Amino acid sequence: MAIELTDNSPGLSDVPGLRVGAGSGDIRRKGQDRLDTALVVADRPCAAAGVFTTNDVRAAPVRFSQAVLAAGASAIRGIVANSGNANACTGEQGLRDTEAMARLAAEASGCPGGAFLVCSTGRIGEPLPLDRVAKGLAEAGARLAATPQEGERAAWAILTSDTRPKSVTARFAWEGRTVTVAGIAKGAGMIEPNMATMLAFVATDLAASPGVLRAALLAANAQSFNCVSVDGDMSTNDTVLLLATGASGLALDGAPAGLAARFQEALDRVCFALAEKIVGDGEKITKVVSVEVAGARTRADAEAVARAVGNSLLVKSAWYGEDPNWGRLADAAGYARTGLDEARLDIAYDDVPAVVQGRPLPENKPRWKEVVTRRRFAVRLNLNLGQGAFRLLTTDLSEAYVNFNKSE
Amino acid sequence: MAIELTDNSPGLSDVPGLRVGAGSGDIRRKGQDRLDTALVVADRPCAAAGVFTTNDVRAAPVRFSQAVLAAGASAIRGIVANSGNANACTGEQGLRDTEAMARLAAEASGCPGGAFLVCSTGRIGEPLPLDRVAKGLAEAGARLAATPQEGERAAWAILTSDTRPKSVTARFAWEGRTVTVAGIAKGAGMIEPNMATMLAFVATDLAASPGVLRAALLAANAQSFNCVSVDGDMSTNDTVLLLATGASGLALDGAPAGLAARFQEALDRVCFALAEKIVGDGEKITKVVSVEVAGARTRADAEAVARAVGNSLLVKSAWYGEDPNWGRLADAAGYARTGLDEARLDIAYDDVPAVVQGRPLPENKPRWKEVVTRRRFAVRLNLNLGQGAFRLLTTDLSEAYVNFNKSE
Repeated sequence: MAIELTDNSPGLSDVPGLRVGAGSGDIRRKGQDRLDTALVVADRPCAAAGVFTTNDVRAAPVRFSQAVLAAGASAIRGIVANSGNANACTGEQGLRDTEAMARLAAEASGCPGGAFLVCSTGRIGEPLPLDRVAKGLAEAGARLAATPQEGERAAWAILTSDTRPKSVTARFAWEGRTVTVAGIAKGAGMIEPNMATMLAFVATDLAASPGVLRAALLAANAQSFNCVSVDGDMSTNDTVLLLATGASGLALDGAPAGLAARFQEALDRVCFALAEKIVGDGEKITKVVSVEVAGARTRADAEAVARAVGNSLLVKSAWYGEDPNWGRLADAAGYARTGLDEARLDIAYDDVPAVVQGRPLPENKPRWKEVVTRRRFAVRLNLNLGQGAFRLLTTDLSEAYVNFNKSE
Repeated sequence: MAIELTDNSPGLSDVPGLRVGAGSGDIRRKGQDRLDTALVVADRPCAAAGVFTTNDVRAAPVRFSQAVLAAGASAIRGIVANSGNANACTGEQGLRDTEAMARLAAEASGCPGGAFLVCSTGRIGEPLPLDRVAKGLAEAGARLAATPQEGERAAWAILTSDTRPKSVTARFAWEGRTVTVAGIAKGAGMIEPNMATMLAFVATDLAASPGVLRAALLAANAQSFNCVSVDGDMSTNDTVLLLATGASGLALDGAPAGLAARFQEALDRVCFALAEKIVGDGEKITKVVSVEVAGARTRADAEAVARAVGNSLLVKSAWYGEDPNWGRLADAAGYARTGLDEARLDIAYDDVPAVVQGRPLPENKPRWKEVVTRRRFAVRLNLNLGQGAFRLLTTDLSEAYVNFNKSE
């Protein structure tokens, strides 16, 4: 049976065994009624896995959640998240605030003492306003439900400079039952995840051990959140979490290979769809560009070339200007210093070759100029040196990005 | 005796033993009378050294000049350069064009068969218009002279998007004679040299063997051109060349340590002054920022942190907005992944501490906010882990940069 994907779904409320709630604590101190607090609560303690930023500077909630998973990933009660304050670079006080936030979440969810994973996103370097978080959490706890409305509210509550919520649900049938994998994410700026992205929460109603869950998440992450970039700035708070409620009555551990494969495919698709949404909603972007590098000696070489191209200011500015400047692509590919041979390099825009074996094809210029006017297109580099390949989904760079980020 | 530094000097015409000339070939095909061709000719074959881009994609003139130096760095007759076309990604034809350009330069200089180093800068991926280069060279050859006027014209001729010429001359006395070290450079965009910068030509009237000259150039380069960045984009054409005419009557090889040290200091200062000019004239910048990292375990760690900070879009955008956002500094420092310990990190703007041992000092905010309004300031990060230090001179990122580079 095929996997059925529902885009812009209610998100986590689609997963049997979960309740979701969102609240507003005015964490941004703007007097707005904007949602900024989310709770995701499993009906009973369940298995969880997570991947986190590899930044040396890790926010308190990242450190805390890593410790919670290390201490007992088989009995996690839920996730608590806030937007508006990242609780990063906040020292010992930050860790105490995160612990308090987890405790408040457990209480607001009616399961005091339950283990909660914590995520924060927003401004770096300012103390978490715990009283405001508590206010939001009280509201979120009171609203906990498995309704689409609360699912959608939770997807809104985790956003920062995003312009729209990001959610997707995958379902497939197995032996007369339905298995669900659903997730929500936020992104927008400071996006070049490595081991994770800003925030994504995914859940399934399969049962699973933490080890099996973690392996599945690492595999999905490697080809989704780790393959996108907006501005090349890896965050202090990147976190992807996966919960397995078991409410479907099916278990992943010891399952037939068919179920494990189907689950992995569903998880891969959910993670990739969320990652794509993060790029598509990048701060002030006008284009989504797939940088596809093939023929490298290794995957690592292909990734280095793709990231050099996709993070080049000159390349991104040219995309913004719809200028089909392949010279800048070649320059950036070269400074990845993987030992590429210019005389073997192929460059194409979508399916229109611009350079073949290092030789420009100026006669194709009208066609590739047309390609770069599109909102979405691919630049394809074949190094013709081996089998290594990597695809980076990235964006252009607009004047509005600079203007938007010149202050917080 | 002190070294006397003359800023905005005539440049290479200051060096006894050299003649300089510039011409206009309309290489940009804009019908302008803009200078675009330069010749630097030694009165007799002399020693030379060079450092070049480490980009895998190296322009034809880079490959050619490397080969010329490898074949005989003790008998170089001069340098020929053009702006408006980089002769990069131009395949075999590009190499033939470079060879022809060297030949034309030798003829125009009245020393047919002489060994010339070749540099090109400008648009990537288009064939060099050799007829136009020849026209410019004929004019440059006819004008060859040791006059300040021609020195200044040559400094203009190598510019691309630069807004002003870049030149400096250092002089010091030794045993009743004057030793001169002078140079010119161009920069502006696609600036993150590694092993060299866009183009810089430096010359001295000392005599020297190629090996001694090369060691001196590598030392000067390591703390000048390799410590600046505008946009993080390493070019295909970065080249720094050093000629030693010997016209002073003094020789470096076998010289007393005092002369060698004095020369190195003069060369260091000339290279640093030129590198600083490149940053200060970066494309559409509004600020020059010195990112000073200390207390790293190694110099390489310090450099990685400095480059992560100095090339972060979010950091550069915040500088442009005069927003004293030290959280973005900490984030970028962390994703250099050198193993820094957030709890030991100090951050200061000029001499105003913003973070000490990981603890923010919000009471200082008014003072550091004032610092970031200046056109030039330093951000200082002390990792407090060791003795490694690195200083990167870089710029902010403006909306105008993106606009300027959205097409060529």
